[in-house]
Amino acid sequence: MSQPNTDSAILLICCPDRKGIVASVTDFIYKNNGNILDLEQYVDVESNVFFMRVEWSLDGFDIPPGSIGRIFKDNISVKFEMNWGIHFSGQIPRMVIFVSKLSHCLYDILSRTSSGEWNVEVPLIVSNHSELAGVAKTFGIDYHIFENVKENKQKVEAEQIKLLEDYKIDFVVLARYMQILTDKFVSSYPNRIINIHHSFLPAFPGAKPYHSAHERGVKIIGATSHYATAELDAGPIIEQDVVRVTHRDTVEDLIRKGRDLEKLVLSRAVWSHINRNILVYKNRTVVFRG
Amino acid sequence: MSQPNTDSAILLICCPDRKGIVASVTDFIYKNNGNILDLEQYVDVESNVFFMRVEWSLDGFDIPPGSIGRIFKDNISVKFEMNWGIHFSGQIPRMVIFVSKLSHCLYDILSRTSSGEWNVEVPLIVSNHSELAGVAKTFGIDYHIFENVKENKQKVEAEQIKLLEDYKIDFVVLARYMQILTDKFVSSYPNRIINIHHSFLPAFPGAKPYHSAHERGVKIIGATSHYATAELDAGPIIEQDVVRVTHRDTVEDLIRKGRDLEKLVLSRAVWSHINRNILVYKNRTVVFRG
Amino acid sequence: MSQPNTDSAILLICCPDRKGIVASVTDFIYKNNGNILDLEQYVDVESNVFFMRVEWSLDGFDIPPGSIGRIFKDNISVKFEMNWGIHFSGQIPRMVIFVSKLSHCLYDILSRTSSGEWNVEVPLIVSNHSELAGVAKTFGIDYHIFENVKENKQKVEAEQIKLLEDYKIDFVVLARYMQILTDKFVSSYPNRIINIHHSFLPAFPGAKPYHSAHERGVKIIGATSHYATAELDAGPIIEQDVVRVTHRDTVEDLIRKGRDLEKLVLSRAVWSHINRNILVYKNRTVVFRG
Amino acid sequence: MSQPNTDSAILLICCPDRKGIVASVTDFIYKNNGNILDLEQYVDVESNVFFMRVEWSLDGFDIPPGSIGRIFKDNISVKFEMNWGIHFSGQIPRMVIFVSKLSHCLYDILSRTSSGEWNVEVPLIVSNHSELAGVAKTFGIDYHIFENVKENKQKVEAEQIKLLEDYKIDFVVLARYMQILTDKFVSSYPNRIINIHHSFLPAFPGAKPYHSAHERGVKIIGATSHYATAELDAGPIIEQDVVRVTHRDTVEDLIRKGRDLEKLVLSRAVWSHINRNILVYKNRTVVFRG
Repeated sequence: MSQPNTDSAILLICCPDRKGIVASVTDFIYKNNGNILDLEQYVDVESNVFFMRVEWSLDGFDIPPGSIGRIFKDNISVKFEMNWGIHFSGQIPRMVIFVSKLSHCLYDILSRTSSGEWNVEVPLIVSNHSELAGVAKTFGIDYHIFENVKENKQKVEAEQIKLLEDYKIDFVVLARYMQILTDKFVSSYPNRIINIHHSFLPAFPGAKPYHSAHERGVKIIGATSHYATAELDAGPIIEQDVVRVTHRDTVEDLIRKGRDLEKLVLSRAVWSHINRNILVYKNRTVVFRG
Repeated sequence: MSQPNTDSAILLICCPDRKGIVASVTDFIYKNNGNILDLEQYVDVESNVFFMRVEWSLDGFDIPPGSIGRIFKDNISVKFEMNWGIHFSGQIPRMVIFVSKLSHCLYDILSRTSSGEWNVEVPLIVSNHSELAGVAKTFGIDYHIFENVKENKQKVEAEQIKLLEDYKIDFVVLARYMQILTDKFVSSYPNRIINIHHSFLPAFPGAKPYHSAHERGVKIIGATSHYATAELDAGPIIEQDVVRVTHRDTVEDLIRKGRDLEKLVLSRAVWSHINRNILVYKNRTVVFRG
Repeated sequence: MSQPNTDSAILLICCPDRKGIVASVTDFIYKNNGNILDLEQYVDVESNVFFMRVEWSLDGFDIPPGSIGRIFKDNISVKFEMNWGIHFSGQIPRMVIFVSKLSHCLYDILSRTSSGEWNVEVPLIVSNHSELAGVAKTFGIDYHIFENVKENKQKVEAEQIKLLEDYKIDFVVLARYMQILTDKFVSSYPNRIINIHHSFLPAFPGAKPYHSAHERGVKIIGATSHYATAELDAGPIIEQDVVRVTHRDTVEDLIRKGRDLEKLVLSRAVWSHINRNILVYKNRTVVFRG
Repeated sequence: MSQPNTDSAILLICCPDRKGIVASVTDFIYKNNGNILDLEQYVDVESNVFFMRVEWSLDGFDIPPGSIGRIFKDNISVKFEMNWGIHFSGQIPRMVIFVSKLSHCLYDILSRTSSGEWNVEVPLIVSNHSELAGVAKTFGIDYHIFENVKENKQKVEAEQIKLLEDYKIDFVVLARYMQILTDKFVSSYPNRIINIHHSFLPAFPGAKPYHSAHERGVKIIGATSHYATAELDAGPIIEQDVVRVTHRDTVEDLIRKGRDLEKLVLSRAVWSHINRNILVYKNRTVVFRG
């Protein structure tokens, strides 16, 4: 008990806007002896919806972590009809990476997890090909290959879901995984499957966006990270970025320049996810601490 | 004859690629005592098409400006089946600005022309509304209003073309002009009508792109300047740029942030055009000195 | 009284961090029947300093605007040792623009104020030259020329301060004003003089930054807007932006590209200032709603 | 002889500007039956210096690669007093990476070399620490540790130079190598040592730039890749890029965001170097095909 508790609690809230929400939530924290480390709120005036992320120190907080949710629910959330979730900085999320043959996003992610940049565990990599098994081995991570995904999609996905459950996976990162997921799979991990699409969505959805961008003669290309939904490349956008190209750039140049974008944009999206900065509403994201 | 000639000649070339093009053109300039100030070439390997922009000093050049084109044609261009054009830095292009009610692009352009940033003449502003007549008057520019453009498009456009001929207009800038031009008008000024569209094309073509961008929840918005063609918002792109937005930005914020983009992107496109940096091929632009 | 009050109150707070600040402030607003439109807080953990901006609707608020400050002070601010300020969206700030000979920032600002983009009044332009008097006249703004500023700085500045008082000026924008202000002048408008410096500070402070940037061979140039302080180009930075350059760009190209940056960066800084988004602490800015 | 030669020759030229240079060089290539793939030239008007990069196909070229240099020298370069170099796309450069303890740039580079993105060989990694030996082993690259570099700098560097000679190293990449090199070492690899500095130079040279950037309250941070010279952080800049930060970003956040910049900027600089796109003149770089 002599060690201070360095953990914090993070509360994410979404509810109809009305007077007194911030006052009630912060009063709840204050009365129970919590010190707010970070608070950000936002009101979508059009929809009259209130969003909030508040993080406070658990050091000296009167309510034990296991009871915070129940007490918050009874005293606050019901009254304001909140959608809410509570997280603790001490809980390290478990991530699975889905890959096909391209290695750049995988290397980028693993260099971040292995250097401690991200506070996340990666017990498993899933692929429809064997090419990147060596990379997984290098980093000491289990690598499961599912062959013929296209032909046996339902069967394969059922096995994958089972595997993810066995590994106690919290969220999925599609690191240039070249397969379309079924609604069933997607709905098993709502707002917990992060995809990277290699275009500036909604421009150039679907296959071969760099070819389309070259054909159209754009002067800037982009990458988009979003939560996967049933509709392809149409899920809520988490992060986007772009890079300038010129007439000199061939399709191969776009692919090369795009790789750097994909790595960056996917990593920023994962960072926001694991830091509990994201709320999803009406197929859009609220990204706090952006 | 004691004054050095500070003018330069600019040759723009597009032709099937083969050996000896650069050697022949530069030899032509060298033999006639010209000093190359700037040369850029580019080969579209896919299409086997050669593009080149070369600028040389007319000081001491053996051929008088009026004869360069004819001699170049006879000696070089025919042999290589070139599409080509010659321009002289001393020729100041004459520009017309088409506007509706929004003033930001107009002010931006006029502040550049009046301060001497651009070496261009603006004798005429055309509009379908009277709102910006005062701005035109302030800068001492003729302002012609064409009413009921939508209802009498063909008649109005015929009058506009006549007016542009009277004013000896070289090229047209659509500075947030809210009317769709007919094929006839567009084909009267091929690759000489510069439009600004307030989205990152090909995303969000057509009307109300900021509303669509907000609805889709993008994290970056853009603006695109392109040559107008018969198909709406589908012409060859000259320049694009983007700015970051967040969930906090309302449609009004996107419009406000977008205005700055529109001004910048349109101005850069006009700059490239008046400096003869642009070649168009297969609905794409080659923008030299980018 | 049948019209709803569309005005809002904005409270800016800076104080030592401790438990209960957000709860107390939001409870104050809630108890008096205010609806929070926007709240952002931030804690500088290193210095243990708390910052907050909260905006709420005055429609139905129990305390009349003229009394909010006093009641807030007695009930809240004293207890938490706050530095604080209250503003009302209905108060339109009065801005003076200082210029020398360059017109681009001036045109950019005036196109924003005249189109209604900014909710600000510009009754006065001050200059040490006559060149831009015509622009001022065009926009119907008084233009005062102070000659020989360098030689009679103290005398001139005393007159300027008197003039600004006569015009009831709230804040000053130095739109490429080529004179150094004395400490006395600067301290008369603390954190209310916004300057634009044409480099990416702290690189290239002082005179001729574009020449220095070219000499050093940088690949990116920038502009910096900051509050003027006694030390030249060393005040708290409000906004910065950059643009890419290449070896092809001469000093003149840097100056041309830089002008667009200067306009943009200065305008964003002024926007943040007039929307009461900025707090200054230890020569740094906290810019809310960034 | 039935296989076409897919290799190309690259000629880099720097000389006093005068008439006829481009004509002479391109005529030389044309007369010997070469097809130009890419040509870019640039004249520094201020210094009257001419720069050029020209690449042509060796397929069917009349002069064997081993003789091109000699013949070019005798026929062209002497006449124009050229500094020049010839390279062949078939020559794969050999690169050594110097590291200390930070892994992010190393992983980024190795993921590019191992995936074939870069056409370069990495036979050797040099470090003053053992931490990254495992990474080297993973990628099958020799790893040499030099201890006590600071205390025995001259002795250690002599051994390093010997080692680089043994490994036939063409150029050096300092991937966040935390040691200052002596003039002797630097002058052994003129314009062939690529460093990454974690600031937007010339702002914040030397140690702890992220701390300085935070202290100064900048709104944008940068990274700079340059050729190492005798003077610390003052060599010719190859590439720079920036990322936006806010008051919320702690020094740790700057370090984290900066890592992504460092990777990107260093990699772009190495790409330009291995593609022979760079000429250095008066401590500035000309980067062709930028």
